[in-house]
Amino acid sequence: MNVVILAAGMGKRMQSNLPKVLHPIAGKAMLQHVIETAREVCATTRKDASDMGAAKICVIYGHGGEQVPTAVAATVSEEGISFAKQEPQLGTGHAVAQAIPYLDDAVPTLILYGDVPLTRSASLQRLVAAAGSDQLAILTAHMADPTGLGRIIREDGKICRIVEQKDANAAERMVTEVNTGIMVAPTIALKKWLGQLSNQNAQGEYYLTDIVASAVADGVLVTSAQPDAIWETLGVNSKVQLAELERLHQKNIATSLLEQGVTLLDPARIDVRGNLVCGRDVTIDVGCVFEGQVELADGVKIGANCVIKNAKIGAGSVIKAFCYIEDAIVGEQGQIGPYARLRPGAELGEDVHIGNFVEVKNSQIAAHSKANHLAYIGDATIGSRVNIGAGTITCNYDGVNKFRTVIEDDAFIGSDSQLIAPVRVGKGATLGAGTTLSKDAPEGKLTVSRARQITVEGWQRPVKIKK
Amino acid sequence: MNVVILAAGMGKRMQSNLPKVLHPIAGKAMLQHVIETAREVCATTRKDASDMGAAKICVIYGHGGEQVPTAVAATVSEEGISFAKQEPQLGTGHAVAQAIPYLDDAVPTLILYGDVPLTRSASLQRLVAAAGSDQLAILTAHMADPTGLGRIIREDGKICRIVEQKDANAAERMVTEVNTGIMVAPTIALKKWLGQLSNQNAQGEYYLTDIVASAVADGVLVTSAQPDAIWETLGVNSKVQLAELERLHQKNIATSLLEQGVTLLDPARIDVRGNLVCGRDVTIDVGCVFEGQVELADGVKIGANCVIKNAKIGAGSVIKAFCYIEDAIVGEQGQIGPYARLRPGAELGEDVHIGNFVEVKNSQIAAHSKANHLAYIGDATIGSRVNIGAGTITCNYDGVNKFRTVIEDDAFIGSDSQLIAPVRVGKGATLGAGTTLSKDAPEGKLTVSRARQITVEGWQRPVKIKK
Amino acid sequence: MNVVILAAGMGKRMQSNLPKVLHPIAGKAMLQHVIETAREVCATTRKDASDMGAAKICVIYGHGGEQVPTAVAATVSEEGISFAKQEPQLGTGHAVAQAIPYLDDAVPTLILYGDVPLTRSASLQRLVAAAGSDQLAILTAHMADPTGLGRIIREDGKICRIVEQKDANAAERMVTEVNTGIMVAPTIALKKWLGQLSNQNAQGEYYLTDIVASAVADGVLVTSAQPDAIWETLGVNSKVQLAELERLHQKNIATSLLEQGVTLLDPARIDVRGNLVCGRDVTIDVGCVFEGQVELADGVKIGANCVIKNAKIGAGSVIKAFCYIEDAIVGEQGQIGPYARLRPGAELGEDVHIGNFVEVKNSQIAAHSKANHLAYIGDATIGSRVNIGAGTITCNYDGVNKFRTVIEDDAFIGSDSQLIAPVRVGKGATLGAGTTLSKDAPEGKLTVSRARQITVEGWQRPVKIKK
Repeated sequence: MNVVILAAGMGKRMQSNLPKVLHPIAGKAMLQHVIETAREVCATTRKDASDMGAAKICVIYGHGGEQVPTAVAATVSEEGISFAKQEPQLGTGHAVAQAIPYLDDAVPTLILYGDVPLTRSASLQRLVAAAGSDQLAILTAHMADPTGLGRIIREDGKICRIVEQKDANAAERMVTEVNTGIMVAPTIALKKWLGQLSNQNAQGEYYLTDIVASAVADGVLVTSAQPDAIWETLGVNSKVQLAELERLHQKNIATSLLEQGVTLLDPARIDVRGNLVCGRDVTIDVGCVFEGQVELADGVKIGANCVIKNAKIGAGSVIKAFCYIEDAIVGEQGQIGPYARLRPGAELGEDVHIGNFVEVKNSQIAAHSKANHLAYIGDATIGSRVNIGAGTITCNYDGVNKFRTVIEDDAFIGSDSQLIAPVRVGKGATLGAGTTLSKDAPEGKLTVSRARQITVEGWQRPVKIKK
Repeated sequence: MNVVILAAGMGKRMQSNLPKVLHPIAGKAMLQHVIETAREVCATTRKDASDMGAAKICVIYGHGGEQVPTAVAATVSEEGISFAKQEPQLGTGHAVAQAIPYLDDAVPTLILYGDVPLTRSASLQRLVAAAGSDQLAILTAHMADPTGLGRIIREDGKICRIVEQKDANAAERMVTEVNTGIMVAPTIALKKWLGQLSNQNAQGEYYLTDIVASAVADGVLVTSAQPDAIWETLGVNSKVQLAELERLHQKNIATSLLEQGVTLLDPARIDVRGNLVCGRDVTIDVGCVFEGQVELADGVKIGANCVIKNAKIGAGSVIKAFCYIEDAIVGEQGQIGPYARLRPGAELGEDVHIGNFVEVKNSQIAAHSKANHLAYIGDATIGSRVNIGAGTITCNYDGVNKFRTVIEDDAFIGSDSQLIAPVRVGKGATLGAGTTLSKDAPEGKLTVSRARQITVEGWQRPVKIKK
Repeated sequence: MNVVILAAGMGKRMQSNLPKVLHPIAGKAMLQHVIETAREVCATTRKDASDMGAAKICVIYGHGGEQVPTAVAATVSEEGISFAKQEPQLGTGHAVAQAIPYLDDAVPTLILYGDVPLTRSASLQRLVAAAGSDQLAILTAHMADPTGLGRIIREDGKICRIVEQKDANAAERMVTEVNTGIMVAPTIALKKWLGQLSNQNAQGEYYLTDIVASAVADGVLVTSAQPDAIWETLGVNSKVQLAELERLHQKNIATSLLEQGVTLLDPARIDVRGNLVCGRDVTIDVGCVFEGQVELADGVKIGANCVIKNAKIGAGSVIKAFCYIEDAIVGEQGQIGPYARLRPGAELGEDVHIGNFVEVKNSQIAAHSKANHLAYIGDATIGSRVNIGAGTITCNYDGVNKFRTVIEDDAFIGSDSQLIAPVRVGKGATLGAGTTLSKDAPEGKLTVSRARQITVEGWQRPVKIKK
């Protein structure tokens, strides 16, 4: 199947330097949603296993939209995607016409819109089925209030034309079935009809909908399919509409999580921008944000107001409130937070405890180790059953280079120690509180760097300086 | 009164290892809600002061529900509660029949459902009153859309039978009064009617509703009462429904707080899972979660996104954003947060200030003392007017034992000090910045442990190592 | 124009020690909203440039409302505002009568309510226009359910009287146009009509609405205007209503931000209590609170759950989740947070990075400097390209005085250093980790204070003490 995605709209009402179709819904450009849906439709509509070709997708971008091809290349596979520039922009029919060189006559053409991001592939599959190989199929929707939209005019049940609001007579305005703009056409005929379009109208534009008249004139049957929900056909022209679709989409995601058995304390207060995979008996408290690929294993509990990106959380782990976890792995039965910051490369073993105001970056921490209070652990390899005291800091950076700290099993790092990397703390070693460790600490022994405690006789407390 | 609570449903749609009735609403198992409501009803329907017996509650649990008696025992008084196992599960009538050995013939029997958690005791009291000592009373509700529910069929205003959706004729389907399943029956008759139930139906189950026909046949009057709100009768079969009831319940709690005079910046963004007691002129900002028993005295202000469990906050205290307070006491006029972590056993006196990234655990801090920045205070007794510098850490743990730190009135703890417990800082003592205190600091004097500051001549900055 | 603002209501249902009209909507007393709107109306209705007088506003306060004049003086210019005490409170007509000594006969009088905070000036301008110089104009609204409200009775389209619910006949109760209480009257006539009011009614009060009858009797035309939205006329008598108007107002603010092109991830989860000015391509994630005057320049991204008060954030800066920023300035291309606390007087240059668990107060930090982890920077002047290590603390307070720390360009502050102010770190100087700096560090050199690292032979780990 050919797919043409119209993505050239300027989007002036978005009031943004970003082309409209690149604005995200759930963290992903609207255009990317449409491309992924198009690929899904193509994958499911292949006739047989021998039909291995990828979808042929042509994205029509416009003046100022040079970022569009770059953005697409950065986020999805480019296989089967071509780009055509529409300049100047002379209407939707003119936009589709730019794709003509890329369309394979042997298969039908599906026309989608880069600013209508939430159409489901199931709806489009029905539309493709309705079109068959030689009919024009239009995705239509029944609207409680169709005002302003193009009405589907049927005679004896068959679609005979689309009438715009301003051209509709009283009877036609009563029609609640509207054109969504999404359609599937036989490609050879589509090319012919596009060539017949005229811009002799008030706007001086070439309208795609005019091909319906051509189809009827050619005796081609115009069929239709309907989406499961109206919101599948909603487009975005403003930040108000973008926010509406964002919330709608988030509500759908939340409902899907609930249906999978996830406990959400408030389905209206979870944001998933990517793919959240949950095991059995997962509970997510209010105000959490998930980005990228996040996996929560069986029995995981996420506390209120957490932000979690690209992370795996092991079975039975508890992530308390206010955690910020990014590109990190938490093992099973972990106790994390509140206020724990796991940065890229943090990999925690089983039953690791990371407490409040602790930052872990690019470090492996093995089973049963704990860093419960105010600490910075960067570029470290930490063994099992290690206790990292409050205020401990791995000094991993000399201003230009980064070095690793190694702490072996069963070590006890006294509070407020600084470990100047590269440095190694041996198995079962103990560091005294306040130690500045500049050389390796041998295993099993107490190592300390400490000035003598003195009390100053005759010392007077400072007095308030008058200004 | 006898109460039978049906709590044997498998709850497959919950997709959980936890029996359905143990899933929480507002932090409390649904079954616990129902037990507490049942006790409230019993308490208010006792005839006189001599009627001192606790409610006789029989909870019917099912296969795989062995956690149910344990969970109940852990959360509510077991007085007057018995458990009966229904195995196999042959319908609601069969479930109630399991309670027969526990039912006192002298008083009526109220039948409730462990997965219908929000019925109010006022509604049930009306139902009990409607039943009197010898009638069958059904809690019925008028639904805008009764589809799928059992209709209450009346003749001359009297209930004569309940018709299930599938058995209802066109006229009966128009009836909007439905059976909620909750009922009160005279106990001797109930036992008889349960014995008459048949499982000769499509499902092969014994239906409790069939006792209505028996009552009518016996000439027993079938009366009814209605709940104040439809949501009182809603049951939970899925996580979607659990979330719906959670939000409904939270909305009710928020409205109740507003009616008590609490200022809520957003009633849709507060979660109360337990009992929140507020004084006059309390303000709670958005995104806060309260768990367990929390008391906020007059004039308390809670900032955005706080989590507060089992805590008392004194009059006039300000809790700034992002605080996490658990099993702690804040005195009057406290200034707490943002990002303050008060852990179990933190007890703060009047006008204590605990600032950002400060953790306090199992410590008493007396009036006018301050720990405003990045500190860990654990197992400490701190006097009045003490100033704890930024980065101060009480080293309370030697790897196996915990010891206490004592800081007397008017002491000044320099920044980044470590106090190695057990240790005492005397009245009015000063610790120099960076001190590692391993012995007591005498009162009124400056104590310090500090290496000489040296500048290394000829030292070169590190250069970037090529990899 | 004269403006009379009725602000004497006790507000018992608010259950507060604060007079009702001082309760805030969006962080600002309701009365302040009304005063500001009144001034806006007056400014736009002045006839010409020579009409330079400020609005003449008379606020009527009541018993127990002595805080009202003080609160007004603290928040808005007092120019043109007078206060009159109504004691005892004998009705709305009696309240307006207290303003008589302050009313200029030459201009009309607008009557507003201190507990109706959200009326828009555009609606009031239409009302003022409807009144002209010699008519009585009433702001009326069409309510779907007018029950309980005073109905506007018209004959031949002209307002002839207002009928209260209890006095209305069946036909009058069908009227959906209601009196909002807001009106504009010719001042000489108003004074006369107020003098004619009677308290011979069930409540024994003098009702302002009775002046309508006087106007009709005097042959004065009674005209009307309508607000754009019903919520403009809603009053606050309880915390429930206060919360409703708060959310309504926040929703309006969110919509306005969206219309300006700001991307809001959830318009229902942003709170603006003051003035939020946004550049182009600003994105604000869920759960943020803005207070006072906040400016976000082009391309700024605000992460989830931030609190930002009185701050300027430079172009391209990213504020990550959980930041708390107050009276601070962030330069362009800043990287702030997560969990960064910028306190009053924090002024960050271009491309400054402030990371997790870092507090900055009353400090200037120049371009490209970084403090990425657990640090306290108070009363410091920091140059460009400075690296502040994890755990660094400026010891700015000796218990009674505060002193400044100066760190010059390109300095490298090793982790866990304490800088005892007043102290200076020279250009390009390096401090070793764990340094307690009590004297200036010369430029370009390594300065350190460090005890020798020793390992204790024969030392045994502590054993668990039996209790």
